Amino acid sequence: MLLPALATPALVVDADAFVHNVTTMAAALPGDRCRPHVKAFKSTALARRLRDAGHHHFCAATPREILGMARAGLGADLLLANETLDAVRLAEMAALDVRVTVAVDSDETVDAAANAGIAAVLVDVNVGLARCGCDPADAGRLADRARRLGLEVRGVMGYEGHLMGNPDRAERRAGLEPAMAALTEAHRLVGGDVISGGGTGTYDLNRWVSEVQAGSYTLMDTAYAKSGLPFRQALAVAATVVSRGRRDGREYFVADAGLKSLGMDHGLPDLELSDGTLAKVWFCSDEHVTFAVPAGADPAARPALGDLVAIRPAHVDPTVAYHERYRVVRDGLVVDEWEIDLRGW
Amino acid sequence: MLLPALATPALVVDADAFVHNVTTMAAALPGDRCRPHVKAFKSTALARRLRDAGHHHFCAATPREILGMARAGLGADLLLANETLDAVRLAEMAALDVRVTVAVDSDETVDAAANAGIAAVLVDVNVGLARCGCDPADAGRLADRARRLGLEVRGVMGYEGHLMGNPDRAERRAGLEPAMAALTEAHRLVGGDVISGGGTGTYDLNRWVSEVQAGSYTLMDTAYAKSGLPFRQALAVAATVVSRGRRDGREYFVADAGLKSLGMDHGLPDLELSDGTLAKVWFCSDEHVTFAVPAGADPAARPALGDLVAIRPAHVDPTVAYHERYRVVRDGLVVDEWEIDLRGW
Repeated sequence: MLLPALATPALVVDADAFVHNVTTMAAALPGDRCRPHVKAFKSTALARRLRDAGHHHFCAATPREILGMARAGLGADLLLANETLDAVRLAEMAALDVRVTVAVDSDETVDAAANAGIAAVLVDVNVGLARCGCDPADAGRLADRARRLGLEVRGVMGYEGHLMGNPDRAERRAGLEPAMAALTEAHRLVGGDVISGGGTGTYDLNRWVSEVQAGSYTLMDTAYAKSGLPFRQALAVAATVVSRGRRDGREYFVADAGLKSLGMDHGLPDLELSDGTLAKVWFCSDEHVTFAVPAGADPAARPALGDLVAIRPAHVDPTVAYHERYRVVRDGLVVDEWEIDLRGW
Repeated sequence: MLLPALATPALVVDADAFVHNVTTMAAALPGDRCRPHVKAFKSTALARRLRDAGHHHFCAATPREILGMARAGLGADLLLANETLDAVRLAEMAALDVRVTVAVDSDETVDAAANAGIAAVLVDVNVGLARCGCDPADAGRLADRARRLGLEVRGVMGYEGHLMGNPDRAERRAGLEPAMAALTEAHRLVGGDVISGGGTGTYDLNRWVSEVQAGSYTLMDTAYAKSGLPFRQALAVAATVVSRGRRDGREYFVADAGLKSLGMDHGLPDLELSDGTLAKVWFCSDEHVTFAVPAGADPAARPALGDLVAIRPAHVDPTVAYHERYRVVRDGLVVDEWEIDLRGW
């Protein structure tokens, strides 16, 4: 990625890589076969590019994401792929003049949706990740309860998040069999047209669902980059080299992006020097990353103070949540800015 | 901490613990002996409480923090305790009608400060953390260069960040000797009235500096809680239990705060149930934490869906940077809200 002159840290999207990713997904899962997950990128401007590629249905992890998408005119079919008991936020979503479906996995979440005036639900089924989702055997009972309360039950969802980060494609595929058997059985009990699930890591392996909830493919991160997917790393945090020093005879450099601009749960980021050389990242502080030029690198790769470097985050979602906007870059020029307008809750 | 009814996740400050922390520091390091570091809390509303406790000089990690503090009327003496080569932001700080000092550690940063019209600098000295700061032996030369360019050189700063997280007080104390010997020698070469350094972990051990740059003491986190300091944990992320399930015969619960509301570089957070019992945190996802009630806990501690739990982050600074405001709580009521208005860059 060529980086332009920028105030740093700055979240940068490589326009060509992004277009490649969007085009690749739209060819593999056209139209409503892909329900892009806005939690990965939190931007209605970015979502609009996905709609223009043919995806009109979106899912989200927070009520604010749903509200923002609706208000941006992207509300053809919005799914809160998450549970909430928040009566105020449920009522806000119910009051929207668009189609909103929410996930439910318990009596309490069914009742909260019905009480708030939500029109439609999916029964969220646990397919192996110890997070939200009911026992598959309980899915029919919850659907019955929802229908009794006047809710439309559109079907089921089940997120195989326990498989998503596995870099071994064969293992992801093998893990899908029991997970999707559980979801298929739950769907038999629940009925409805929708079987929602999947993600970037299983988008072309999950043949059981009617729609795939993928979002990370748009921007990618170093964790997903290990999975042999056809998507390119489009995201970087641009940082300026502001200091250098020596420790134990080794030269190090310091750039001005750190823990407050990078999701760190998946570990340290990668750092690319101007010629694409991968630096050796020593550690991150709140506003800094300390790194060294690897032994054997081209001496021209050694940065000067003031040079830009590209930091590749290990996890896209919590990285994006720190930033106010994307700078979209092509050939070293900022060609667009997309506000990250769906942050917070 | 008693938690009020809140839309979650919500960043919550225990008013009594906060007042205890502020009072304790103001007694130990009154007035300008403490230069509170706004990077830890990023809020002019919170900073105002520190000014009211007698601290009128502040330091910051980003130009935006400096600009925000100045515009909030908290600009009696502001230190950018960090290097920047950004000519635009340096000029914005120079144009403020308040006293701004910036850290420099290289010819390039000295020249950038002078060119932008900055009035005063501190020479930042590396005292053992491989981050910013010049070689102590180079400090005098940099001071001379700065003075030749018309800058006021107020003294030195050196941050012993490599010692800060060590939970062993004796080791922190022992590590200070060589670090502060280097800073003292640099100060001899540089001159000026200011020797700035220290932090929450060494606030009462560092007898070499003229002012201590501490910020985490105001709110605290689980990492600093292991250091035997007299400060209380005032910060929590309030979350609602939204789901539950079983895996391998063990019951787990899911609350609605995760990687996008918690700095994760120091590891998993603690999670307190309503009676103060520490839960067993299994893992965090973007918007969730999955946890279990420990064996042997009071059965009354087992949460119901809809209950609030208090999540204690492992690292305060990158946690705060995700949130829009603090809810200040006393006796289970929100008694104040403080905007986190210094986020971003």
